[in-house]
Amino acid sequence: MKKFAVVLSGCGVYDGAEIHEAVLTLLAIDKAGAVYQCFAPDIPQHHVVNHVTGKEMSETRNVMVESARIARGNIKPLSQFRAVEYDAIIFPGGFGAAKNLCDWAIKGDNCTVNPEVEHAIKSMFEAGKPIGAMCISPVIFAKLFRGTNLTTGNDPASGKFIEKAGNKYTQTGHGEVVIDPVRKIFTTPCYMLDATISQIAEGTENVVREILTFVNH
Amino acid sequence: MKKFAVVLSGCGVYDGAEIHEAVLTLLAIDKAGAVYQCFAPDIPQHHVVNHVTGKEMSETRNVMVESARIARGNIKPLSQFRAVEYDAIIFPGGFGAAKNLCDWAIKGDNCTVNPEVEHAIKSMFEAGKPIGAMCISPVIFAKLFRGTNLTTGNDPASGKFIEKAGNKYTQTGHGEVVIDPVRKIFTTPCYMLDATISQIAEGTENVVREILTFVNH
Repeated sequence: MKKFAVVLSGCGVYDGAEIHEAVLTLLAIDKAGAVYQCFAPDIPQHHVVNHVTGKEMSETRNVMVESARIARGNIKPLSQFRAVEYDAIIFPGGFGAAKNLCDWAIKGDNCTVNPEVEHAIKSMFEAGKPIGAMCISPVIFAKLFRGTNLTTGNDPASGKFIEKAGNKYTQTGHGEVVIDPVRKIFTTPCYMLDATISQIAEGTENVVREILTFVNH
Repeated sequence: MKKFAVVLSGCGVYDGAEIHEAVLTLLAIDKAGAVYQCFAPDIPQHHVVNHVTGKEMSETRNVMVESARIARGNIKPLSQFRAVEYDAIIFPGGFGAAKNLCDWAIKGDNCTVNPEVEHAIKSMFEAGKPIGAMCISPVIFAKLFRGTNLTTGNDPASGKFIEKAGNKYTQTGHGEVVIDPVRKIFTTPCYMLDATISQIAEGTENVVREILTFVNH
């Protein structure tokens, strides 16, 4: 059975992984007959946001501990990820991807990528294995690669960053997947567009199906 | 369009709403062409559990604030729930249902139900509108009603409680829905069984579809 590594960035759209995208990625993988293992970096969150008010809360949470809520406890620290054990790696979105996995949401053009995230992505890339991302997560790829074809829907801020970093930005609608076939990089907009939860399910199913086409080659 | 109230009990299986069941309930409602509004009581959680270690953490969280992570911020306090505005009400599972919405997980037979939860359920019941629950949430109904037909899969502890409280316990497998047609009460086991996420999606789709059959009568 084909095995996906799913990298989470917390638990909640404003400070962690977007929960619908994360759950529907797991569902898409399972429905496609593949299996998954969740990972997250064992680091403090950038911050904690009250999801009712949108305001920052004066507390600290750990990215892996909160991600474990989505994974029902079955999660590994990203430091334990080994490319040889997986057929593909995929990053659901949410602000956590741009605050915890990299800091693009805070530093913009001058952002840096968490070293474990960078290592996981580059080791899969060097092994010629597919790499997927949803929502805002493609900004991580934009920082690590040049000349890739990426989407975040039709978002001017991330689109400009992706192009300035030397990549191509492709605008997309609901459920569309941008495929960079040479680099095996797959991106889909999900909640970067104003979407229904069914449209998110469509996006995650499409990106997982496209990735499996390349895994099965 | 038919409108569901979805009552959440936090965010995470061990101290709140089970995230897969909650998200897949929202997906099932949307896919069925209905709409939803999430609610949660604005109260402190019974406790906070580290979902990696399973151990209690020395912090406090609010049920509605954490539930808002699943609802992407679009949540209302359960005190604002009005039966006249909804066609059905549904309770995803997770320990939060048995720790925050009622305290069955702590007090067993002597448990009590949160007054807002009791009011929401009884007002729907009195209006003749469908009431659904997944996983462990049916213990709430067992405390509030007599003579109902309920399931939590094939779990001896909750099964015994349901019968002692004067209700009928029906054992079920993956995706099965127990329907009490007179009282319009619908229950399905979800993660009370050792299930895959696809089986959870099947359970939530089935219970939402059965509820809509009664809504449309």
